[in-house]
Amino acid sequence: MSTPARLQPGDTIGILGGGQLGRMLAQSAAKMGLKTHIYCPDPGSPAFDVSNTFTVAPYEDADALDRFAAAVDVVTYEFENVPGPTASRLHAKVPVRPGVRALEISQDRLFEKQYLTKASVDIAGFAEINSQEDLDQALQKFNGKGVLKTRRFGYDGKGQLMIRSSADGNGAYAALGSVPAVLEQLIAFECEVSVIVARSLDGTCVSYDIARNHHENHILKTSTVPAGVTAETLNTARRMAEQIVTGLEYVGVMGVEMFLLQEDGEERLLVNEIAPRVHNSGHWTQDACLTSQFDQHIRAVAGWPLGSAQRHSDAVMENLIGFEADEWHAALSDPNACLHLYGKSETREGRKMGHVNHIKAKALTEGET
Amino acid sequence: MSTPARLQPGDTIGILGGGQLGRMLAQSAAKMGLKTHIYCPDPGSPAFDVSNTFTVAPYEDADALDRFAAAVDVVTYEFENVPGPTASRLHAKVPVRPGVRALEISQDRLFEKQYLTKASVDIAGFAEINSQEDLDQALQKFNGKGVLKTRRFGYDGKGQLMIRSSADGNGAYAALGSVPAVLEQLIAFECEVSVIVARSLDGTCVSYDIARNHHENHILKTSTVPAGVTAETLNTARRMAEQIVTGLEYVGVMGVEMFLLQEDGEERLLVNEIAPRVHNSGHWTQDACLTSQFDQHIRAVAGWPLGSAQRHSDAVMENLIGFEADEWHAALSDPNACLHLYGKSETREGRKMGHVNHIKAKALTEGET
Repeated sequence: MSTPARLQPGDTIGILGGGQLGRMLAQSAAKMGLKTHIYCPDPGSPAFDVSNTFTVAPYEDADALDRFAAAVDVVTYEFENVPGPTASRLHAKVPVRPGVRALEISQDRLFEKQYLTKASVDIAGFAEINSQEDLDQALQKFNGKGVLKTRRFGYDGKGQLMIRSSADGNGAYAALGSVPAVLEQLIAFECEVSVIVARSLDGTCVSYDIARNHHENHILKTSTVPAGVTAETLNTARRMAEQIVTGLEYVGVMGVEMFLLQEDGEERLLVNEIAPRVHNSGHWTQDACLTSQFDQHIRAVAGWPLGSAQRHSDAVMENLIGFEADEWHAALSDPNACLHLYGKSETREGRKMGHVNHIKAKALTEGET
Repeated sequence: MSTPARLQPGDTIGILGGGQLGRMLAQSAAKMGLKTHIYCPDPGSPAFDVSNTFTVAPYEDADALDRFAAAVDVVTYEFENVPGPTASRLHAKVPVRPGVRALEISQDRLFEKQYLTKASVDIAGFAEINSQEDLDQALQKFNGKGVLKTRRFGYDGKGQLMIRSSADGNGAYAALGSVPAVLEQLIAFECEVSVIVARSLDGTCVSYDIARNHHENHILKTSTVPAGVTAETLNTARRMAEQIVTGLEYVGVMGVEMFLLQEDGEERLLVNEIAPRVHNSGHWTQDACLTSQFDQHIRAVAGWPLGSAQRHSDAVMENLIGFEADEWHAALSDPNACLHLYGKSETREGRKMGHVNHIKAKALTEGET
């Protein structure tokens, strides 16, 4: 593997995946004088509009992957389900960042939980489930309650079953498709928060303020900053996030979702899930921080130093899902709302079409310092 | 002329000119789900990298202009020297914003000064010069001193002569090329400041805080905000800028350069020059304001409401000129510096290659509101 560790302006970042995350990554790269080459099987990918070059090919097309590897200086990805052989093939020829190991772990809930345990961060109890018998035993351990999830390819609430009673548990393994699974202990959490953390090639970590996330129909609807937690909770969240990326020798931005619990009047955090990429719950950084998560990821994968994650404004990020995007003019009519639309040609139910960052800035005026 | 006053996401903004300003405009358009089509004779235009479509053709190519007009929903421009016939031809088929009249005025220093006088803003004394005799008479009026400038096609200190004595004045008209010119009264100003102002289709104006500009070799080197002026001066600057755009029925962003004078211990402003486009001295807005000047211009020419021009941070914008761009890594090593590079393939002496916004934000912390 060649390792041109640090890119120069004019060099090219290859991005696997052409959705909105790839699009916003390409925009950040262009801002800093870097070129992008998007690789995506979908000929209508929104990221193509803003990239220098693109390849339309399946992720399994070895020849296309080899040409792609030869044309770029580093490869990154906008989604965690990059097939393992795709990542390995590219990795043999060009640096792949954040890294192949981060992909392996985040593609498999069991590997992920095992890694998080090893990284000494707090997580909810879990059990490996390969049969209904495994499930029955695990449910006994967790007072008959839990969330049964496929180990692989779950997102936005897909591939999971909520179990609240032994009746729910009966036949649940078959209902999930009799595939390798994990049972997660059901946690009475107050809310979900998330931390966007970045690690550079030289191992420096920076993490943003945490966001309080609100979901509707298992899809993120809003992220609010500040999250309204104690300074100690914020520090704990950051420490755990930095432990996770450090242990993986990770290079880039990661989204770390956590459950916030109230236990005896004290806040407590459990890490729920990691995403080895820029994350929807970090979109608020675009308009409320010095360096957005997209800029930060590009800096990291380019081998450049990280920017400040300092927050200058309060923010509420609101996703525009499906036909909600038709309300774009409402966002524009509020001067403190920053509209982001992904340029998707077709609006579909449940599809992320854009987002709005509602910003409450501390206004400075002439003479103030 | 058809007037589809307000664009919809997915519509296309045509941009005349493919330099860094066109590039940053295209990036703002893409952010808000609009498409761009760049028209520029230079096949190596940096804006092409980030646009959906581009046309390489001379500005005088009637067929290419007609095809361009048919392919876009509105036309804007990144430079004021768009040939008059080009603007008129397009204007007959599609809205041209900020407007044809703004182009006519800003292309001719005499027309500009006459307009500014009519708009009731303060400017330095001036005289129309069509002969050495005109010049001699005008110099007498201005105590033998002034700046002789060609009426058309001057920029970055080109097309002008400084006259500090009658000896300097002798033969100066011929030295300038015996072309239509103006003599501007020489002003003992303290510094140059500038205001970025925007006007929407419905006539609403917003203006940013003013920047204090520092030039080297007649090229802008830094813009600093706050400018360190009184609140009254800031208000005067904004009022004059808004009068200028209102009188022109202007739609878009304008850069208004002003001289700051100290007279009897009082600050006074004289408008020096207008640029009917986004302006180098407004680049600081990208990282210190809720809405950048590029976002603002796109919103205006799309017929959308304007965003807030509120400033959340102090900023010093530093241009990277020529080989200074080789120092990009120095900017990256400061976490509070935001690096912008234009992706120009060739570095040349005096060429604007990028800029850095040095930001001093008021940091917010969890719990603060």
